[in-house]
Amino acid sequence: MRTSYAVGIDVGGTRIAAGLVERKGRIVSEERVLTPKNGPFGVIDAIIDLTSAVVGDLHASEIAGLGIGLPAQIDFRRQSVEFCTNLPLAGVDVRGLVMHRLKYEITIDNDGHTAALGEFRFGAAKGARDFLMVTLGTGVGGGMFLGGEPYRGSRGLGGEVGHTPVDLDGPECPCGARGHLEAYVGRPALAAKGREAAATRKGRAILQAAGGDIEAVTAESVIDAAREGDEVALGILRDAGEVFGHALVGFINVLNPQLLVIGGGVGESADALVDRAIEVMGAEALAGRKDARVVRAELGNDAGVLGAAALAFDEHDAREGLHR
Amino acid sequence: MRTSYAVGIDVGGTRIAAGLVERKGRIVSEERVLTPKNGPFGVIDAIIDLTSAVVGDLHASEIAGLGIGLPAQIDFRRQSVEFCTNLPLAGVDVRGLVMHRLKYEITIDNDGHTAALGEFRFGAAKGARDFLMVTLGTGVGGGMFLGGEPYRGSRGLGGEVGHTPVDLDGPECPCGARGHLEAYVGRPALAAKGREAAATRKGRAILQAAGGDIEAVTAESVIDAAREGDEVALGILRDAGEVFGHALVGFINVLNPQLLVIGGGVGESADALVDRAIEVMGAEALAGRKDARVVRAELGNDAGVLGAAALAFDEHDAREGLHR
Repeated sequence: MRTSYAVGIDVGGTRIAAGLVERKGRIVSEERVLTPKNGPFGVIDAIIDLTSAVVGDLHASEIAGLGIGLPAQIDFRRQSVEFCTNLPLAGVDVRGLVMHRLKYEITIDNDGHTAALGEFRFGAAKGARDFLMVTLGTGVGGGMFLGGEPYRGSRGLGGEVGHTPVDLDGPECPCGARGHLEAYVGRPALAAKGREAAATRKGRAILQAAGGDIEAVTAESVIDAAREGDEVALGILRDAGEVFGHALVGFINVLNPQLLVIGGGVGESADALVDRAIEVMGAEALAGRKDARVVRAELGNDAGVLGAAALAFDEHDAREGLHR
Repeated sequence: MRTSYAVGIDVGGTRIAAGLVERKGRIVSEERVLTPKNGPFGVIDAIIDLTSAVVGDLHASEIAGLGIGLPAQIDFRRQSVEFCTNLPLAGVDVRGLVMHRLKYEITIDNDGHTAALGEFRFGAAKGARDFLMVTLGTGVGGGMFLGGEPYRGSRGLGGEVGHTPVDLDGPECPCGARGHLEAYVGRPALAAKGREAAATRKGRAILQAAGGDIEAVTAESVIDAAREGDEVALGILRDAGEVFGHALVGFINVLNPQLLVIGGGVGESADALVDRAIEVMGAEALAGRKDARVVRAELGNDAGVLGAAALAFDEHDAREGLHR
């Protein structure tokens, strides 16, 4: 049966959002709460409450299912949370616990993978057979479509593009290794560079963007100052973009995608960073790979909810044997 | 019809080899020549002559087809040679020219991709759904199977694992960019380190392995000295292995393969290099990815011929709608 709606749940370290989404990607109703900090059951309860709120009095037969995007490494076939850095969900049977209390089909996935699904179904990657999605934010994640299908890796743990080594002796990454992409372009890395600059005279535009409080300098302070044309802030973003560009060269040379989609809060706002990365990629990828198009993600703030809803539609249609 | 044989042609910068191969991977007859240096038609003629020699008086209906592995970037769908560094084949219609004179179905592919096909069908990757093959030799190449199928990228240009950036300011790579894997672990890089050491007292075991002539020091001199237990040679290989390990961490984190197959002349002989890479991978890949098995390629000297024959069988069976 061709159901009309799916529920997409986007679980983040700060907020949880849920949306009731039509097949064409229109969000009919949406709810958000701050992520409960009282352990796994707080998160489970929030997912259930938000779902009930956005579904309202729709009949279950109209709902394709519930998709949940988590900031976690997920064994996709087993539908189990293997690792989760920011929330206490590792080993917690999120799917089973939610399913126990709601009557919908439920699928969980890594949020980088759902971002790729969302852009494929509703956004910048429509019709692309081979693309890589990179989400630049506090963490750096991603997902990919290869040969027209989502590719998650042998267990579903793939797509961790932030944990690509780009330097043999670089700064420490949140994962504990050195020189990974995330250690250069994640929000904490940009904020640290911003604070370093703001402590000197030349960084006053960044300091000003943070309201004059050096402790309040964030990645967004740097991005805002760069938007105003501040050369120091632009330099920080271009340096990070150079590193990002090197990582893109590797992805292009190994995977030969036709398209790269850059999303996430930083990816969408830090133009100088992304532009520099595209320059590096054009100059250093092997000849013939340079024709990979680079585009911005289109789903913006709704990416998480729409991606999770896309997952629910896809899994529903696969169960029913429907073609996309 | 279930044909019994395929012809596999392995075109290298130094030699061209052809083999008549049974479905189970036994090479029935094999011929080799030095690669002609008189332009593209010399190579085409050699392919034709070698094929005739190995096929003998078998009837064409017994031959599934001809597979040709080339050290080149190939647009797989168009069957065109896009770039070729070591041979004058870029833009040459290798397939058309050979097909014009032989009556077989012919398929060309990058030699890293055929190596992966060969290991999947006949060697170390039998039954693996998700694996990455890396060939360490003069160049560093590779290929992959994702979701049970060969994956070549959107145009067929993927698998260039040697051109993965591993350092922001490393040595120059033959491709012109800086800090790529190949610039650390390719034969020329190992030979340069070997010559550097051989010019000093501490490198005398390497010098000895090269017959006392510093100009004759090759990657194999370093590998041979390391096999004899020479600490300087072992150090060179371990340093290269450290870099290789970092690259493997990236592949594992992004692709989450179940298996890595290490082949090529250097991959098969430089134990200290591969062992160190496995150590780095185990220490630095994200938790849960560390369960990717690493194995050596099994096809050795016959890898090129068997891989190209595997390509011919696969393409034949796809045309005939046969399952593998």
